[in-house]
Amino acid sequence: MKKSTFYHAGCPVCVSAEQDLLNLINPKQVDIIHLGDQREKLSEAEKLGVQSVPALVTPEGSVLHINFGAALADLKS
Amino acid sequence: MKKSTFYHAGCPVCVSAEQDLLNLINPKQVDIIHLGDQREKLSEAEKLGVQSVPALVTPEGSVLHINFGAALADLKS
Repeated sequence: MKKSTFYHAGCPVCVSAEQDLLNLINPKQVDIIHLGDQREKLSEAEKLGVQSVPALVTPEGSVLHINFGAALADLKS
Repeated sequence: MKKSTFYHAGCPVCVSAEQDLLNLINPKQVDIIHLGDQREKLSEAEKLGVQSVPALVTPEGSVLHINFGAALADLKS
């Protein structure tokens, strides 16, 4: 089964959303990517349609922007 | 186990988010409330901290606003 990917940037909103999601979804089915630490993943996230973090990209490719921590554009600067 | 509650208003963003979430979370663990049809639930949603739909309220009481379909304020008018 294909995994979901949770993109975040370590912000309080991100950490809180991550905890909430991992209570709802099997953690083994979610890859977690910290865009502050893994800056090489920024363009990948952007191509997938991620506009802000925290965001969950589903196995089907849907992007769920969850609450609002930071804009992707701000992480790139 | 306490359930999550998914609030929506039938908007395209809501329907899409609902499908995505129910692929990730066991549908038996989610109550789905259409605030356009069940207007008596608007104040309950507001008290829980829902500001826009679609939104998922977790069993722990966290509110995850997912993408953006409509503001709760607009549903009340």
